[in-house]
Order: sequence, then C-alpha cells, then structure tokens
Amino acid sequence: MNPNRSTCPFHALLNKETSRPIRRKTKRLHDEERVRQLLHSTRVGYLGLVDAEGTYVVPLNYVWYQDAIYFHGSESGRKADALSTAAGPLCFTVAQEYGTIMSTVPAKTGTSYTSVMLFGNVAPVTDLAEATAALDAMLAKYVPGYFPTPLREAHVERYRSSMGNKTIVYRLVPDKITAKQDVAEPEALFYGGRTQRDDLKKS
Amino acid sequence: MNPNRSTCPFHALLNKETSRPIRRKTKRLHDEERVRQLLHSTRVGYLGLVDAEGTYVVPLNYVWYQDAIYFHGSESGRKADALSTAAGPLCFTVAQEYGTIMSTVPAKTGTSYTSVMLFGNVAPVTDLAEATAALDAMLAKYVPGYFPTPLREAHVERYRSSMGNKTIVYRLVPDKITAKQDVAEPEALFYGGRTQRDDLKKS
Repeated sequence: MNPNRSTCPFHALLNKETSRPIRRKTKRLHDEERVRQLLHSTRVGYLGLVDAEGTYVVPLNYVWYQDAIYFHGSESGRKADALSTAAGPLCFTVAQEYGTIMSTVPAKTGTSYTSVMLFGNVAPVTDLAEATAALDAMLAKYVPGYFPTPLREAHVERYRSSMGNKTIVYRLVPDKITAKQDVAEPEALFYGGRTQRDDLKKS
Repeated sequence: MNPNRSTCPFHALLNKETSRPIRRKTKRLHDEERVRQLLHSTRVGYLGLVDAEGTYVVPLNYVWYQDAIYFHGSESGRKADALSTAAGPLCFTVAQEYGTIMSTVPAKTGTSYTSVMLFGNVAPVTDLAEATAALDAMLAKYVPGYFPTPLREAHVERYRSSMGNKTIVYRLVPDKITAKQDVAEPEALFYGGRTQRDDLKKS
C-alpha cells in the first residue's frame, strides 16, 4: 500500500546515532511507547519548510498512522509550493508542555515537557485507498465515534478535487526520530500564588 | 537599547501585502489586539531553522517583549549552529487550537484555531541590560509573582557563562507578521459522544 515505507522498524528509527547526538544525553527519551503515545495524542504538529523567502513553519492537524505522519492541504499556496520543491528531509515536531519547573534560583527555572522530532521526505499520497485510510484515521483521532461508517473512497475522490482547489493528502515517512523530555513531579511546578519566599522557608 | 529594532509599527507589520497573499483572505486575522494577546499568552512557539541536513523545528519558551520575540538556548548544538549560519529570515509560529468544527459531511470537518507567524532575522542579544530585561519579562510570563525582586544583571551574566556551556539570549525582530483564524462557536465543536446521526436529526 505504501511503496515509500521505510523498512526500518520504529525502535531502530528512534534516537538512532548520527554524527550529531542530542546535546544533553540525559534528556533523551527512549521509551518507545511514550513516543508513540505523544505522536497519537498531540493535536497540532509543526512542519518545517524552507523556500527562497526563508523558513516557514506550518501548524497542522495530522495523524500518526502506520508509522508515518499524514496531513492534508491545498494544492496551492506557499506550503504546497515549498513541499513540491523540497530538496532535503523535512522536520515535523510535536511537543507537549506540562508547566514550569520551579527553582529559587531564577536561571534554574525550567520547563516540564516531552517533544518528538521526525525527519523524512514528504510526498503526496497518490493511491486513493491509502489516502482514504489515512483520512479515516484522522477522523478517528479528531472526531472519534461521530461517523457511523468508514469514509468512502468516492467521498475522498470528490474532496480531493473539490471547489476548483484540490486538496492533497501528504505522507511523511520518518527515517529518523528524536525524542526528548524533562518531566518534573507536579509539586515542582509553578502555580499562581507560589513564591520564592515560601519555597525558601520550606527548604 | 535595541539597535535592530524595526522602525515599522506593529500594525504596519501585520498582514502586510507581499507578493504572496494568504490563500483564503477570509481567514486573515486583522485584530491587532488579538494577535498581541496570542503572542503574549501562548507558552510554546516553534522556530523554523534550516541547515545542510534539512529543516529543523524547535519548540521554545519565549516572551513577546517590546515587539520582538526573545528566547534563549545553549551556545552549542544544532539550533545554535543553524542560528549562527542562518542566511535568510526565519519563521516563528505560535498557534492555539480550540477544537474540531463539526460537519455532517466528513470533508467539511475543520479546526477552530488562531495562528500567528513572525518572519525576521534572529540575532544574539549582546547588551546585558537588554538580555536581563528580556529574561525578566520571561519570568513575569511563566512564573508571575514568584520572585519578589527584578532579575539582577550579575545573575544573568553568571547564567550566560555557567557550567562551561554558555547560554545565549536571542532576539527575533519581525519584519512581517501574518495571522489567521477560524474560530467557531462552541456549539459547533466536537465533544465525546456527539454523533452525525444526532446532528442530522437536529438539522
């Protein structure tokens, strides 16, 4: 169904060694299940594009389906143009932020987060069955249980050519995934009313 | 204090006409106050970088201060390298997503959101007073009221050279800002248990 599918299993893509390791090794996230969970549950991912004007970061609804990122977009516009001329691998980033990690020392204030970056080529999905399955997975993610029946290929076919402005379904197959996290205990996080003075008294 | 400050007022930067207009004009957001509010309140922004390996999208805590984006980072790593070699303007994107806009037609399912993209050059902040003011604004954003006194320059000086791994404060001065939104009434949004069947009955 997907000729561009990487033959590399997920665990081999995750944090694989490259010439440039993540700076702080301690923050690397190796928990494959947690990475998959983040990819499945995050609602907006950010795709990095570049063209003659500079870089361009597009927030996207997407679905993590069969170990690839699927999203859709118009056939015209800066995003479509940058995608059609992309020369190298593109980065797709998802992150969740859980709050600010307190320290009584200002410079040690940090962020509790998990983030995942996927790197790979993006291609339009030309196969109607694959596009339909991906869009169906997207509906299952964003509006679970709303539609009683699976998406029909005829509907997707119309959608892809509607209103004189075709919609394209894209697929990013990662050949590298990096994941980082720094998750703090809830009691370490900032909340309104918390003060340095109170924290110094406790310590 | 900031020699690179654009002389262009905020309203002149926002959605200014370029050779490439936003595709769907109806979705352009012209409310300057709403754009400022989004820039002030969003907790994570996404910076688009590019280097020989491809694109690279970094989630960042930041502060919108004196009509610029301030953030900080290590002096080493892919982000620092890509920033120091950046040739063209970089894109910094913030978005808020409020839910999925329902339609009984699958292809018309949409997203309720506001997004802002800023385009401009990024430079390290060398002036200690400016770096201190920006980091103080960042503390006011993420941990309001926690520290009883403003940040001291001596603390920032130490922070910038700590642990053999210097921290750099960066400033992105936008020379273009684009903003889009498609915000739906709450009753148009998906919620768990909502079904096409019920919506069809109502209409």
